[in-house]
Amino acid sequence: MPGELEEDRVMIKDSAEASTIYNKGCYGYPMSGGGLELDLMEASYLVESNRLEVVNSDGPITLEDLIRAASLIHRDFEIDYTVYRDLRQRGYIVKTGGDFNFRLFPRGGTPNNSQTKSWVMSVSERATFQIDPFVASIEQADQTRKELLTGVVDEEGDITYYHPCKSEPKGNVNVKWEGGPAVASLMEDRVLVFDQKSVEKLQDHGYYGKQTGAVLQLSLIEAAHLMEKGWLEVIRIASNRRINTDRFKKRALKFQPDFDLRLAVYNDLRSRSLIVKTGFKYGSHFRVYDDDPDKTHARWLVHSIPNDYETIWPEISRAVRLAHGVKKEILFARVSSEKIEYIKLTRVRP
Amino acid sequence: MPGELEEDRVMIKDSAEASTIYNKGCYGYPMSGGGLELDLMEASYLVESNRLEVVNSDGPITLEDLIRAASLIHRDFEIDYTVYRDLRQRGYIVKTGGDFNFRLFPRGGTPNNSQTKSWVMSVSERATFQIDPFVASIEQADQTRKELLTGVVDEEGDITYYHPCKSEPKGNVNVKWEGGPAVASLMEDRVLVFDQKSVEKLQDHGYYGKQTGAVLQLSLIEAAHLMEKGWLEVIRIASNRRINTDRFKKRALKFQPDFDLRLAVYNDLRSRSLIVKTGFKYGSHFRVYDDDPDKTHARWLVHSIPNDYETIWPEISRAVRLAHGVKKEILFARVSSEKIEYIKLTRVRP
Repeated sequence: MPGELEEDRVMIKDSAEASTIYNKGCYGYPMSGGGLELDLMEASYLVESNRLEVVNSDGPITLEDLIRAASLIHRDFEIDYTVYRDLRQRGYIVKTGGDFNFRLFPRGGTPNNSQTKSWVMSVSERATFQIDPFVASIEQADQTRKELLTGVVDEEGDITYYHPCKSEPKGNVNVKWEGGPAVASLMEDRVLVFDQKSVEKLQDHGYYGKQTGAVLQLSLIEAAHLMEKGWLEVIRIASNRRINTDRFKKRALKFQPDFDLRLAVYNDLRSRSLIVKTGFKYGSHFRVYDDDPDKTHARWLVHSIPNDYETIWPEISRAVRLAHGVKKEILFARVSSEKIEYIKLTRVRP
Repeated sequence: MPGELEEDRVMIKDSAEASTIYNKGCYGYPMSGGGLELDLMEASYLVESNRLEVVNSDGPITLEDLIRAASLIHRDFEIDYTVYRDLRQRGYIVKTGGDFNFRLFPRGGTPNNSQTKSWVMSVSERATFQIDPFVASIEQADQTRKELLTGVVDEEGDITYYHPCKSEPKGNVNVKWEGGPAVASLMEDRVLVFDQKSVEKLQDHGYYGKQTGAVLQLSLIEAAHLMEKGWLEVIRIASNRRINTDRFKKRALKFQPDFDLRLAVYNDLRSRSLIVKTGFKYGSHFRVYDDDPDKTHARWLVHSIPNDYETIWPEISRAVRLAHGVKKEILFARVSSEKIEYIKLTRVRP
């Protein structure tokens, strides 16, 4: 006996059939007087897997018709359905409802014997990635102590799952500066330390800069950080005169329009006893060590983003993929006037 | 006996000293009457490696002073010098002059016994990447049958070398369509094929689409390509009416602002007997197979770029790194009204 399509649901009136379908996979919502109510996602999946036939008053309905009906009611039905089908095929019990697209139960668990394990958001690769609602979702999942999963559906219907969460990176390198400031020279957009005592001091106290030949090279960010702390004096190589911190930062802003954003993140990471180096080779802003960079590999790649950051999903995908490829974690450092939040995205296979 | 700084060069007048320096590394240009003329890059390197002392009329000059003098004359001296020093330290004979920053001789070779092997461009990570002059440099190197190397200096003075060249990707999959068009349904931004005969046809002739469950999903690009060839008819799922190719493409443009750019590259790659799939998971536009995608791995990642493409170097770095990480080659497909050029960037260690 088939299910009957009634607007946005499919009713299975036969009690025996209803039980069979409900018992194997917890599809639908059992009715008080017997029978089962399926939503169109569940019904489509059961039709596609040849476990259900659906009719309406005109007769049998094809999968195509059912999906058409669903897509007229449910915005982005196809995206959500792609994720639903995938999770079902992976053997999970999946339920709709609540603030996220789906609730996922632990493997082997059902709504009758276990609590929701994860909230699932399904998004199209073509959707815009906006940090603000994204962080709000992470916080909501945190508050309910559930894992959050984001299933991004690409244009072929393939799904990449991310587990987004907040992170509080911490390191073991506490820098204590002793004595007066080191001295460096500014040449266009490079800060060079020729004085050998200054070179040693900067390397010994916090692993600042990079030695190439006899000269230590500081990045603009490192120099600005050190100048703010009073640990560095910078002389302009052309005029042989000292440059003050504000002027230096203004100059840096000309070379790097996002200099202030990056410096805020650099300062924060340093205050967390971390060692921060450029992430250029990895296409991100920083690579971050929690211990002596000569002895350990960088653990994180960090990308600074503004409070209202928006981008396309493939950008996010690329950043996560890249970090994984070099066995590091990617952190998006979101800078607002009050605080810096670190958002970690990990690719997972549910 | 030291060298004497004279404006933009350092003269070594003592013939014995001049010979010593010239014979070990071919530094400078021997003078007709004996002695050697060094440019400031060479002189700085020799001073930094403790092989030369330089004076002017006031007395000895430090490395810092020499670099200061050089940077006042030579724009981006520090960038160029960083690359020069690195190549010298790798044991190469490096000469300035010509249309590129440096000429590089084969390992063990000198200007006296060998021809230039590579042209080297040195650029700052902060410089803008512009495709137009970049391609012009590739073409110039091609015409002179030299290898081109680009040394990108990051903010720490670390260098990443790229070998850019043109590429003509070719594959082995020749699609011959037989019979009438396949039929598909358009649902928001998804094209779905429910009809099983159409599904088989699309998979057998050119590996179009991706099967998920009983349904074959075509990307908008694939659908537009097939419609242009007359191999696909698309019905809008909401209205149950056929949509023509122009309208379909206009619709696609709303979802993907760079749709035309991507479609041009897709069509071109297909005409080269290649199989083209989305590159979403790799953060690029396409992944490209030269044979049956079920039996081989994708060989290339392809990114479509406009004729006048400009970006920041870290973007380029990231794309190359990512492709290497997954053992593929990255091609930038540059689309102009007349042609599509493929630019390959490979990371190399000279």
